[in-house]
Amino acid sequence: MKRSGENYQVDRIQELETKGRAVLHDALGLTGSEISINELPAGVSVPFMHAHKRNEEVYIVLKGSGRFHIDGDEFEVSEGDVIRIDPSAERCIIASADSSLRFICVQTEANSLVQFTAEDGVLLESKPSWFA
Amino acid sequence: MKRSGENYQVDRIQELETKGRAVLHDALGLTGSEISINELPAGVSVPFMHAHKRNEEVYIVLKGSGRFHIDGDEFEVSEGDVIRIDPSAERCIIASADSSLRFICVQTEANSLVQFTAEDGVLLESKPSWFA
Repeated sequence: MKRSGENYQVDRIQELETKGRAVLHDALGLTGSEISINELPAGVSVPFMHAHKRNEEVYIVLKGSGRFHIDGDEFEVSEGDVIRIDPSAERCIIASADSSLRFICVQTEANSLVQFTAEDGVLLESKPSWFA
Repeated sequence: MKRSGENYQVDRIQELETKGRAVLHDALGLTGSEISINELPAGVSVPFMHAHKRNEEVYIVLKGSGRFHIDGDEFEVSEGDVIRIDPSAERCIIASADSSLRFICVQTEANSLVQFTAEDGVLLESKPSWFA
């Protein structure tokens, strides 16, 4: 579903198995992150090792299993694993020979978060229709 | 699996159905985001409307269905829907009467992203073991 209001925007991830990758920054007009949802078929690797200049990456494994390489360490990952990687680290990812690997990657400017949750949130008196 | 290196940290989300919420900032030592993975049981709402002072939120619906309220607009969401919400917007979420709702929420400082992906990434000559 696509829709938007003054202060929000909604899109829909489609055909992830076919396309392999959905990116949200431009689709949603993000200003604090780039977020990708990725599907590596069984046995397929990201084709290169890479690092970043400024951005921290967080990986969230949604489904399947695979293997990460980070700065010479290699380890298995599967559904439920979450990984923070600092900008300078060398990284690569491969799906298991017998399983695809679905994961989210969140890129943000390292050290950019000022406050969050309780400090940043504001509780309001207004109510949605289901509490009215 | 928990493990860490100089430039990375790995944790594992456990028992999400039981706990209802897993938060990653402290578990992973995040510096650019707070990320939560949330499970609202069928018919259950976040118990309050809220806004933010500085942070943009991105919601990614992983499973199930529910309803968002944003600034007076209300709409259904289901697996694959992705939503950006600016700091000032009033928001609340409820799971459908007959379905739980699993979603990720990414909080970042609005307007903090400087560059991403092609601009921020650095391709490297080094290889993981599976390309050696």
